[in-house]
Amino acid sequence: MTAVETQRPQLSSSYLPRSPALDGSDPEAKRAEMAEYFTSVFDRYESLFDLLANDAAFYDKPIALRHPLIFYFGHTATFYTNKLVLAKLLPERIDPRLESICAVGVDEMSWDDLDDTHYEWPSVGEVRAYRQKVRAAVLKVINSLPLQLPIQWEGTWWPIIMCIEHELIHLETSTVLIRQHKLEYVRSSPEWSPCKSSCAVQSAAPENQLLSLPAGQVTLGKARNADRYGWDNEYGHRQVDVEAFQASRYLVSNAEFLQFVEAGGYADDDVWDDEGLKWRNFAAARHPAFWVWRDAWYLRLMSEEVSMPWDWPVEVNCLEASAFCRWKARETGEPIRLPSEDEWYRLYDHAGVQEVSSAPASANLQLEHFASPCPVTEFAHGDFYDVVGNVWQWTHTPIYPFDGFQVHPLYDDFTTPTFDNQHNLIKGGSWASCGNETRRSARYAFRRHFFQHAGFRYVSSDAQAQEPNAYYESDRQMSEYAEFHYGDSYFNVANFPKAMAELAIAAMGDQPAETALDLGCASGRATFELARHFAHVTGIDFSARFVGQGAEMAEQGILRYTLTDEGELVSYKSSSLADLQLAEYASKVAFYQGDACNLKPQFSGYDLVLAVNLIDRLYNPASFLETVHERLKLGGKLVLASPYTWLEEHTPRAQWVGGFKKDGENYTTLDGLQDLLGKHFRQVGEPQKVEFVIRETRHKFQHSYSEASVWERIL
Amino acid sequence: MTAVETQRPQLSSSYLPRSPALDGSDPEAKRAEMAEYFTSVFDRYESLFDLLANDAAFYDKPIALRHPLIFYFGHTATFYTNKLVLAKLLPERIDPRLESICAVGVDEMSWDDLDDTHYEWPSVGEVRAYRQKVRAAVLKVINSLPLQLPIQWEGTWWPIIMCIEHELIHLETSTVLIRQHKLEYVRSSPEWSPCKSSCAVQSAAPENQLLSLPAGQVTLGKARNADRYGWDNEYGHRQVDVEAFQASRYLVSNAEFLQFVEAGGYADDDVWDDEGLKWRNFAAARHPAFWVWRDAWYLRLMSEEVSMPWDWPVEVNCLEASAFCRWKARETGEPIRLPSEDEWYRLYDHAGVQEVSSAPASANLQLEHFASPCPVTEFAHGDFYDVVGNVWQWTHTPIYPFDGFQVHPLYDDFTTPTFDNQHNLIKGGSWASCGNETRRSARYAFRRHFFQHAGFRYVSSDAQAQEPNAYYESDRQMSEYAEFHYGDSYFNVANFPKAMAELAIAAMGDQPAETALDLGCASGRATFELARHFAHVTGIDFSARFVGQGAEMAEQGILRYTLTDEGELVSYKSSSLADLQLAEYASKVAFYQGDACNLKPQFSGYDLVLAVNLIDRLYNPASFLETVHERLKLGGKLVLASPYTWLEEHTPRAQWVGGFKKDGENYTTLDGLQDLLGKHFRQVGEPQKVEFVIRETRHKFQHSYSEASVWERIL
Repeated sequence: MTAVETQRPQLSSSYLPRSPALDGSDPEAKRAEMAEYFTSVFDRYESLFDLLANDAAFYDKPIALRHPLIFYFGHTATFYTNKLVLAKLLPERIDPRLESICAVGVDEMSWDDLDDTHYEWPSVGEVRAYRQKVRAAVLKVINSLPLQLPIQWEGTWWPIIMCIEHELIHLETSTVLIRQHKLEYVRSSPEWSPCKSSCAVQSAAPENQLLSLPAGQVTLGKARNADRYGWDNEYGHRQVDVEAFQASRYLVSNAEFLQFVEAGGYADDDVWDDEGLKWRNFAAARHPAFWVWRDAWYLRLMSEEVSMPWDWPVEVNCLEASAFCRWKARETGEPIRLPSEDEWYRLYDHAGVQEVSSAPASANLQLEHFASPCPVTEFAHGDFYDVVGNVWQWTHTPIYPFDGFQVHPLYDDFTTPTFDNQHNLIKGGSWASCGNETRRSARYAFRRHFFQHAGFRYVSSDAQAQEPNAYYESDRQMSEYAEFHYGDSYFNVANFPKAMAELAIAAMGDQPAETALDLGCASGRATFELARHFAHVTGIDFSARFVGQGAEMAEQGILRYTLTDEGELVSYKSSSLADLQLAEYASKVAFYQGDACNLKPQFSGYDLVLAVNLIDRLYNPASFLETVHERLKLGGKLVLASPYTWLEEHTPRAQWVGGFKKDGENYTTLDGLQDLLGKHFRQVGEPQKVEFVIRETRHKFQHSYSEASVWERIL
Repeated sequence: MTAVETQRPQLSSSYLPRSPALDGSDPEAKRAEMAEYFTSVFDRYESLFDLLANDAAFYDKPIALRHPLIFYFGHTATFYTNKLVLAKLLPERIDPRLESICAVGVDEMSWDDLDDTHYEWPSVGEVRAYRQKVRAAVLKVINSLPLQLPIQWEGTWWPIIMCIEHELIHLETSTVLIRQHKLEYVRSSPEWSPCKSSCAVQSAAPENQLLSLPAGQVTLGKARNADRYGWDNEYGHRQVDVEAFQASRYLVSNAEFLQFVEAGGYADDDVWDDEGLKWRNFAAARHPAFWVWRDAWYLRLMSEEVSMPWDWPVEVNCLEASAFCRWKARETGEPIRLPSEDEWYRLYDHAGVQEVSSAPASANLQLEHFASPCPVTEFAHGDFYDVVGNVWQWTHTPIYPFDGFQVHPLYDDFTTPTFDNQHNLIKGGSWASCGNETRRSARYAFRRHFFQHAGFRYVSSDAQAQEPNAYYESDRQMSEYAEFHYGDSYFNVANFPKAMAELAIAAMGDQPAETALDLGCASGRATFELARHFAHVTGIDFSARFVGQGAEMAEQGILRYTLTDEGELVSYKSSSLADLQLAEYASKVAFYQGDACNLKPQFSGYDLVLAVNLIDRLYNPASFLETVHERLKLGGKLVLASPYTWLEEHTPRAQWVGGFKKDGENYTTLDGLQDLLGKHFRQVGEPQKVEFVIRETRHKFQHSYSEASVWERIL
């Protein structure tokens, strides 16, 4: 392995300040710092578009999935206007038409979901003039807005940093688009100079090796009072023990990746997963996207193609990185895979990396060294190289919210649409990452088929990479039930599954209370509540999705879901067992999918069967009622509750238990229950009506009564 | 016209007591009277079945539409058991199987809706033995049940009379079935002897003539404390002025009807209405059903066919009677038609008819003269004949409930299923009518195609026969809205349309308040409420059915509808303007069908436009919002309220006013309203949330908030 000499350019005049500390003792100094941070980023962003050689470069799309660059040129400016109007910091719009056209990108499309909307793009001059108006307007705000330190999440200054950090994200993603543009559209600029150092021979690149890290605990998640700006997904808490593992000393270089290419890895279906195969076939991928073959391998940079720098990190998407790991695991017999996010933090802590503070950064970060990657041997961090910087590093972990996650009201869809298990976290930042992107706490995620300045490091570990659940339930019925079971009260009506469990527990008196069955448990709240009194509680529902909610609550202690506010507008919500004082009962419950009309024999011998809002949803309630005694011990209690909402869609008319004329007389469901249960049960006391409310939107609720009756098995 | 001599039989031993007075001073005497009334009717009913010649006569159906006679033999007895068990007067069932099989008839089927259910009918001996058990059980109740006079609707004795009167109804309808049975199944009996007197020559029948009655007021409806038993439909109140009219002196005789038959009336499509044509074609009717042609005309009686008695009343269904009237009107140029129920009462009062009291009755009623009709010249009542008795008289009037109608809880479907404008009232009773059926207040109704011992008298009048609305709204949505607008409060939430009208009136302050428009008025409650403040109020809704509810309320002052309790079980409800202190405003409102997105130009110049829960049900709410100022005077107020429940089924997604992300930001409906209304309106004050509750079942409600905003037209 040969370390290759590198030439570092002088710090350019376009040195970018760090993301400001939010606290401080001198508001006016902070105001000045904010003004400098704003103008530096705003002007540097504009300078990037100087790389475009002509007007056509602004309007021809670099890739089909995204808007042309004219959109991005305008977008970061309109974002200032849109958010500052929303935050009531700007009194009025500057150019409503532009602010509408340049508002919404198409970043989160699937790879085969092409954008073919027709847009009437503005001229480059128009956008340039607009940007100057925005620059002046924002500066006016910064210079006049009252400022109290610290700058806080809820405060008036937060949207200003939000807009600056937003522009930094687009600064980086625009460099990627430029790198994907036709070469004829791009020109070079001294301000955006690539690294000139590289080894031109594959064998001269460093040989990678696995280094061991001991087990250790890592803490993720940013405190609400942290001293730097963070996006919504960074806040909250996670502490986890990471097992010992090995990690590659270097990022995977172009040289190392060539082995995979030359071994036929792209054509080898066994090393691609389903998603990877679909992408590879669609894209007809045969090598990394920025590699160009012209009798020899070249690498596309922003404004030029260079002879392949074999010792630079390879840049691939997550699917290619994963395929490489599978191939490498097969070749070596080692458990090679991408690191989890937790493992990356363990590596970061172990390597003793420091936040970027003084310049120049001790990593290829912050546009402070090169406008390109550089050799993987350039920046050492402890025993490793490029723990941060150079190119982003794909992880095995889809982005998920930490405990305590909240959206910011001015940008509620920054992260939430990516909590879908389809966006994997990238860590460490690239040469183009600045501001928030460079920090330990940063958490960005992209679809796995997406290209960024991103490569990877592999690890070897027998441990499974943990994948905390990222899922926000957004199915209407499922999220309505999550809220119904674990969420807020409305119209002062007490939580219904809890009230039903309490009614059932009261009905038990001092009878033995070893086991209970919550049949038709839906999202499972009553199952947990019964576990306050019973040693073991079984929750069963016909819907595997409902049972999944209960099981998820038992395993993760938290459920996340959206609440429909109005039309398509939603709020993001989570409910936890801990907040409901139920965490200690999670080990006493078990959830199963099952059919109350045809229950497996092992579900029997219970002291209590609770069946809430169940019978009018069964296809054959009589068969359930005629056999439910078989589930109970003699003397055991059956607690039924139902609003008796008989509907043909759930229960054929011929199977209704009551609610019709029988032999000419009104025959209620309670009459039917008495007839069907009478043989094996004694009814205890009078039926009671218990209220319940199910929220549908901010303005619309179902408000009902369930009639609860108690029965004792006597035969 | 020749009066023909008649021979009256002696009163038979089976003289039937009259329906007992409910009051009195001697409870034990009343108990004895009740016992006698019960046994007389019970035994006389059984004697009717002696006319059946063999067992097959019990099991072969007389007509396809109804059960075989074995059912009716058992039915009146099982009815005692079923009702007395329900009333908790009998401790237990006597024969549950029989009580189920013989519980429900098929009387109310449409004429082409054949019953093909398979029944396992009991043997005749089984039923006979059962009847004896019931007789003993009921007598035991009558002899032991504590009795306080008067006997009252809510009291324990009411179901006993109910069962007796029920048996009397079946006594009569069973005579009709026997008359429809094959002759071989029937034998004669001295207890059931027909009239022997008749003129055998058509020309010897009396010539009918129209006699004049002066205008006069009639009072219908029975007081709650009336002294005789009544069915639910008899109670309540109706007072009406009847214009002068002429009525035929006699019921239409077979001779008079023959003119219609021989004139080709049955084949003459012009004299049948749609319903009549359908029936005539289905039944291939060419003459009255009991007429038999065998080289000459014969008439089928219960147990024999006799030479046509030309001076007896013809027996036809309502469709045939109406066809006759149309034919007669065409032939004579007179406004001949069937009488209304009101006109029958005017005739009754004018003729000075008395209730049947002493025996024999002064009419062919109560089985006291013949077991058949008799000549139309036999019983004079003032200048008329057969104002009561002989055969029932079809009226033009579908049965409808009087103001104050209530169902009896032990028999809630006695009348309510016939409030459908398909059951016309028959008046006056027939030779087979006893007990309640003979009384002035009696109101029975049958489908117009049905055969009873019923004929008709015609009237000549330029007045339209009044047809009070019989309709009980039972469509789910319509009755939910009737209750929402005019019914009870639930969860202590104030009436919503009223609250919205009050909010709008408050928003008017002391502005001029000449005219108001309630757009999307639904059932119209707010339209009426606005009329407390405005001189004229227009209610407009897209749904003609909703507008119909408002118009019906304005015209009739009452709305009737069913409330779903549980499954198919319903309650019957009415709401009146008077009870809501709104009667005086009915003349100030007008209802129109109209489309808020495309309103006719004449609806303009209003001081107020109220649009409640409207915009999220429009197919193009923006077009409404952009033009609604044209409906208002300058300075006029627009009051909007909506829960913002946007649904694709009502409003295409592209037409939503808000509730989505616009240019990347949350865009609420209120934002949309401000944008769309801003040009012509100034928003007044802050939006308010107003609660509303819509009842779906006894246990299930929608509970929502509507956001109300007030706007003043400034341009």
